[in-house]
Amino acid sequence: MRSGGTALAVDIGGTKLAAALVDSGGRVLRRNEVPTPKTDVADEAGDALLGLVGSLLADADADADRPVVAAVASAGPLDPRQGTISPVNIPAWRGYPVLEQVGKVTGPMPSVLLGDALAAAVGEQWCGAAPGSGSMLGVVVSTGVGGGFVFDGRPFGGPTGNAGHVGHMSADPLGQLCPCGARGCVEMLASGPSMVRWARGMGWPGREARQLADEARAGRPLALAAFAQAADALALGIVAAAALCDLDDVVVGGGVAQAGEILLGPLRERLSARAGLAFVRRVKVHQSALGNSAGLIGAARAGFQRLADA
Amino acid sequence: MRSGGTALAVDIGGTKLAAALVDSGGRVLRRNEVPTPKTDVADEAGDALLGLVGSLLADADADADRPVVAAVASAGPLDPRQGTISPVNIPAWRGYPVLEQVGKVTGPMPSVLLGDALAAAVGEQWCGAAPGSGSMLGVVVSTGVGGGFVFDGRPFGGPTGNAGHVGHMSADPLGQLCPCGARGCVEMLASGPSMVRWARGMGWPGREARQLADEARAGRPLALAAFAQAADALALGIVAAAALCDLDDVVVGGGVAQAGEILLGPLRERLSARAGLAFVRRVKVHQSALGNSAGLIGAARAGFQRLADA
Repeated sequence: MRSGGTALAVDIGGTKLAAALVDSGGRVLRRNEVPTPKTDVADEAGDALLGLVGSLLADADADADRPVVAAVASAGPLDPRQGTISPVNIPAWRGYPVLEQVGKVTGPMPSVLLGDALAAAVGEQWCGAAPGSGSMLGVVVSTGVGGGFVFDGRPFGGPTGNAGHVGHMSADPLGQLCPCGARGCVEMLASGPSMVRWARGMGWPGREARQLADEARAGRPLALAAFAQAADALALGIVAAAALCDLDDVVVGGGVAQAGEILLGPLRERLSARAGLAFVRRVKVHQSALGNSAGLIGAARAGFQRLADA
Repeated sequence: MRSGGTALAVDIGGTKLAAALVDSGGRVLRRNEVPTPKTDVADEAGDALLGLVGSLLADADADADRPVVAAVASAGPLDPRQGTISPVNIPAWRGYPVLEQVGKVTGPMPSVLLGDALAAAVGEQWCGAAPGSGSMLGVVVSTGVGGGFVFDGRPFGGPTGNAGHVGHMSADPLGQLCPCGARGCVEMLASGPSMVRWARGMGWPGREARQLADEARAGRPLALAAFAQAADALALGIVAAAALCDLDDVVVGGGVAQAGEILLGPLRERLSARAGLAFVRRVKVHQSALGNSAGLIGAARAGFQRLADA
């Protein structure tokens, strides 16, 4: 069933580095991951990345598995045209030439770089929760709130590759200043750490969004309120995205979205309350189907598209 | 300098119907307009439209001026694929097959239908305030607040043709209900009638946004406050659009924008205050250069693109 070899897909985040061989049907053939090194030295972090990729390739047991394209999804900011990354949570890398470095291990082959949330959206639209969707927003609710658009089956990164930043539009115009410099960003209300911070401010003794989800599932009012507030902020972001971009589907993933209906139930309720125009109301909300493989699978898809366009 | 004939461009609004012959360089060769008929009868309104188009074509004095494509921009809602329009402010037309009707006057030729705010954006990106912009939002501030995106030189209408509705995302999550059903829409704060309604609620005796602009120009505090509030709502919408779509340029047009720096000055100030991330802050704001010809010129551009794609 396979044709045209595999994609080497890499997913770079503040917590872990993952690499996989993904075939042209979106199947993950093998996958390795390591914790993201805690270092300020670019080459030390680079050695961990290149070692990860090298061991994956060394283990590839058949010619059919050999990659024909290298596709990197990364936390931002990044510069897709230069092939460089400067992830906020990986201080070792500022303007790190990730495509060039990965190329040292793979040898010469076409390559592509895109944002991790955009890659996740591409994966879900390819073979995840919204396969074939014509106009889709993927939202990643995790330590931050990221997003990415897929229009007509193609990642939409915009001129700088930064499109889809649903976490940094304002859900509360009079709200708290966000580290980004804007006020009341969606991320300030809906990310895991933001929910925990709010709950702790109300006297909750816990430390993890996961505990908050467990307590919400048990019906504890404070935890339910934290999810209700996050859901409303996400609904404002999704309504804006739907009014602006005419969406068919939204896929919600990331660690916090693993709470499932604890988040998606209130989110659908708030969307119904907040969406006005018919074309905005029609948007369908899905939970991620690919979980933490979405970025790898979507990066691979972008790689195969790059090959097809060449 | 002309090549390939002209486009017959039509712009359908609640106040007037306009038609023009536009050449492939974006020049308006001739133009007619009539008030939008006050009738509930589809054919009566249709007669006015077809008469307008017919007289324009009858006057076309040279073969070189003859249209090779018909391009209609219309107030929404509309269905670009079906070629039908149901403008909120033209009750005579519900599902009116405007492309088919115009075709009765022009004879068989390719045709295209798009939203009026989208057409205006296309015009400004073609030969107006942001020529060649790679990623642009056009905002029309008038009796409502509309918008349209042009990405990579192409109109971005989305699957239903409704993309760009910056007026119907929330700028005030706890604000007044909008007729669309959502709460605190940008349009509820920034349209001409909304500004007048707010000022009158504060005791202002006037009735027209134009008077409000005159008074703001004269430094009257209430009028300045009305523009400041509208500017902040527009800034929230533009920041959201920039965070989501990675914009290079925003062009602001429509009747209220004729106030010029009375609106654009506070708008730039609020954008500076509200935009956080570097790629959001880089967006440049321009006043419309094409005025009320933007929709006709942009429709023509979309028509020529349709021909080129065929």
